[in-house]
Amino acid sequence: MNKALDDLKAYYAITSDIGAVNSLLGWDQNVYMPPGGVSARGQQQATLSRLVHERVTDPRVGEWLEQLTDLEGEEAALVREVRRGFEQATKLPPNFVEERVKHEASAYEAWVAARKNSDFKGFIPVLEKTFALARRQADYLGFDEHPYDALHDLYEPGSTAAQVKAVFGPLREATVALVKAIQESGTQLDDAPVRQSFGEAEQEAFAVEAIQAFGYDFKHGRLDRTVHPFASGSTKYDVRITTRYEDGFLNPSLFGTFHEAGHGMYEQGVSDAYYRTPLAPAVSLGIHESQSRLWENLVGRSHAFWQGAYERLQAAFPQQLGGVSLDAFYEAINKVEPSLIRVEADEVTYNLHVMIRFELELALLEGSLKVKDLPEAWNAKYKDYLGVTVPNDADGCLQDVHWSVGLVAYFPTYTLGNLMSVQLFEAAKRQHPEIEADIKSGDFSKLFGWLRKEVHAHGSRYLPGELLRRAAGEDLRAEPYLAYLRTKFGGLYKFS
Amino acid sequence: MNKALDDLKAYYAITSDIGAVNSLLGWDQNVYMPPGGVSARGQQQATLSRLVHERVTDPRVGEWLEQLTDLEGEEAALVREVRRGFEQATKLPPNFVEERVKHEASAYEAWVAARKNSDFKGFIPVLEKTFALARRQADYLGFDEHPYDALHDLYEPGSTAAQVKAVFGPLREATVALVKAIQESGTQLDDAPVRQSFGEAEQEAFAVEAIQAFGYDFKHGRLDRTVHPFASGSTKYDVRITTRYEDGFLNPSLFGTFHEAGHGMYEQGVSDAYYRTPLAPAVSLGIHESQSRLWENLVGRSHAFWQGAYERLQAAFPQQLGGVSLDAFYEAINKVEPSLIRVEADEVTYNLHVMIRFELELALLEGSLKVKDLPEAWNAKYKDYLGVTVPNDADGCLQDVHWSVGLVAYFPTYTLGNLMSVQLFEAAKRQHPEIEADIKSGDFSKLFGWLRKEVHAHGSRYLPGELLRRAAGEDLRAEPYLAYLRTKFGGLYKFS
Repeated sequence: MNKALDDLKAYYAITSDIGAVNSLLGWDQNVYMPPGGVSARGQQQATLSRLVHERVTDPRVGEWLEQLTDLEGEEAALVREVRRGFEQATKLPPNFVEERVKHEASAYEAWVAARKNSDFKGFIPVLEKTFALARRQADYLGFDEHPYDALHDLYEPGSTAAQVKAVFGPLREATVALVKAIQESGTQLDDAPVRQSFGEAEQEAFAVEAIQAFGYDFKHGRLDRTVHPFASGSTKYDVRITTRYEDGFLNPSLFGTFHEAGHGMYEQGVSDAYYRTPLAPAVSLGIHESQSRLWENLVGRSHAFWQGAYERLQAAFPQQLGGVSLDAFYEAINKVEPSLIRVEADEVTYNLHVMIRFELELALLEGSLKVKDLPEAWNAKYKDYLGVTVPNDADGCLQDVHWSVGLVAYFPTYTLGNLMSVQLFEAAKRQHPEIEADIKSGDFSKLFGWLRKEVHAHGSRYLPGELLRRAAGEDLRAEPYLAYLRTKFGGLYKFS
Repeated sequence: MNKALDDLKAYYAITSDIGAVNSLLGWDQNVYMPPGGVSARGQQQATLSRLVHERVTDPRVGEWLEQLTDLEGEEAALVREVRRGFEQATKLPPNFVEERVKHEASAYEAWVAARKNSDFKGFIPVLEKTFALARRQADYLGFDEHPYDALHDLYEPGSTAAQVKAVFGPLREATVALVKAIQESGTQLDDAPVRQSFGEAEQEAFAVEAIQAFGYDFKHGRLDRTVHPFASGSTKYDVRITTRYEDGFLNPSLFGTFHEAGHGMYEQGVSDAYYRTPLAPAVSLGIHESQSRLWENLVGRSHAFWQGAYERLQAAFPQQLGGVSLDAFYEAINKVEPSLIRVEADEVTYNLHVMIRFELELALLEGSLKVKDLPEAWNAKYKDYLGVTVPNDADGCLQDVHWSVGLVAYFPTYTLGNLMSVQLFEAAKRQHPEIEADIKSGDFSKLFGWLRKEVHAHGSRYLPGELLRRAAGEDLRAEPYLAYLRTKFGGLYKFS
């Protein structure tokens, strides 16, 4: 019996309910709220956020934490998570938080306008303030080596700029070389098969059947339509995903739905025992992304998967795909093409988009790059790494929303997720060599079961580094991902 | 400047946000929540209810109330509403509340089972406890004349059993006579025209067009499908309604949607100035019902409305209604038939169902009727007032959910709403005699405008009695409703 711990848990359960509700409000706003409800909804979310903040920073929490120092295992992890939240919230002076919230609201509007008009110049003072605030936030939060670490830790606990650099360096070089090899291979893949008119109802039916086969649980979830797809879990018992359907392009509904279902299965899979505790939330964005990318790419864009699924897709779209062979379809969904826009990038080039952003935000935060010089630096890197020429800032350094809403040091998690997805997938296959054959026959139970046990169930029990070591038996590395790319795209583009 | 009042208002705004969110949770649970989310949702709602309860009963509220005694007008009304909530919540001992909440949860389950098996006997101890708790609650809350008043006031502030009795007495006698006149008229109305197969999409399109013409605002609302239709407003800026579609019966989607839209327009129409204040909520269930019934019946089931709308309905259903005359359709939607089930009752007999329940719950609360004798008393009244024989308790005294969830003294508000709907409608027509002609031409703006100004805008500014006096120039009376019924059904059934 530990009274302080029991009190803390009971207190946290209520906080967690309020947070869960706030998450549902966000879902509702994006999916079904009538347009005239925006302002009142903002007020409701602000009220719940304030209630959560008051509870997270309540002096009683500080007192409990002072008493709870000698714990081990799950209990220690639970207290670690509460301490993280308490310190992150209490280290920031209230007037700083207020200044930042105000800035972010206007910065978002400014970004929307700047992007629309491709007007970076007008956006310079806004972005300068964003990075000045980020730097101040890092100072308040504290760091050992680099201010970037303080911010990056908010999204990927335990990960540092130095670690990211060490992995991204070789990854970038090898990826650039791989893109070059693909371009010089002389092979051209044709994506015409997926660029036809596909009926929405059939797209949805196929996607639903597929993600149910993966393991997404509709008893504790649902699938709706939004312009920007997302996954939103209020609790593990209610994890909703959204997708979109393009009439002339099959990929968004296929791989977008697989992607969000990957996020959804992760949130649905946390241990029941962690419900309403600080161990329930997903531990990091990188781990989250490893789950979405695993189902989207390692399964969803694999030859093995389509060996089992392609006949059903053809049956759903006999006119469009009846005359397209499995291999031609497989090539169509795996076409590599260096491009300007991150969110439209293929598996090979995607990480280059992320690494460009990482390098630039690091330099902006250090001050070694001035905001006014960002477009030039951005465009140079796109030329250098991807070989593409940026025609305007709207399709260049203004394309992402992240910085405008204060998400600095967030981008690397996309690539961390990619890297870990392969490390985890390989580990699962080492333990269950039959997974490859299972996928061909439409049976995902071994893979799903392994992920549930090794990743999903743990919530925030282990920090990402430890989770990966326990599940995959190794630290974060780029080599498995590179080997995966070389094998897959070497085969597709016929080089080695 | 009044610091206590300002503090109270700021404090209440937050409470109102939490209440609004809890209302949305209820909507979501009924409309889109995945089935496996029930238990977590219950926990979230309990948490928010507890937060609201803590805030409503906070000692600071009591202190502010002590300081706020000399106010007038809106400010006095605002404090009156806060005081009502504070007293209702603080007069009940916590262990009583706990006992009641527990009982209600199990009573609901017991009612579901009892109704399913038509087993009143097993339900007796449950219902005895319900009425014992209701009686204790009345004692805690306090009353001048009758324990019923303390409970009835929760739903219809200012209304008493004596007032209800005084109005219901003559209403019952006259209604019974009217039903007899209808039955003895020799006229039979045929509802076959509305009992055909109607496509859902066409039903929905017609209903949406109609309620938009009435004044329901989809910018601040939406229409979804549920088994049990309802209206749910979180704030005036987001008021959602639901309806249902029956393939073989047109009435539910027509009049059900009009009904819920009437509720919805009321909630959408409260003054902007009252947003997040204690004056925002609807003042009573009776006033609420007056709005739903006005659009459902006084407009929606009127000959005038269909003179303007029937051609469009025929165009939507040419096969079903192309050969049905306007008058035949009007007769079909107004067929009177004494029946067993309240929720399926027509305009004439509906109030008899309500009055039976009022008389019985009054006797149960007083103790002059024992729970075990309820079926016999119920069946006798159905025979006496409606001339129907109750074959079993499932279709008799077990048909309504209300008592099982603790709603004692609630039923009369349905009939109060009917009576007030005519009083308000007549007042609107006195001020704007062109309303009748407008309705024929599909123009509802004068009626809607009058209701918005005289009823909707006021929220809880005036108690129901005062609201009615201000808007209709008179107290609650049964005569206008009876005159309306006599004229309408005298015409339909050809008697006078």
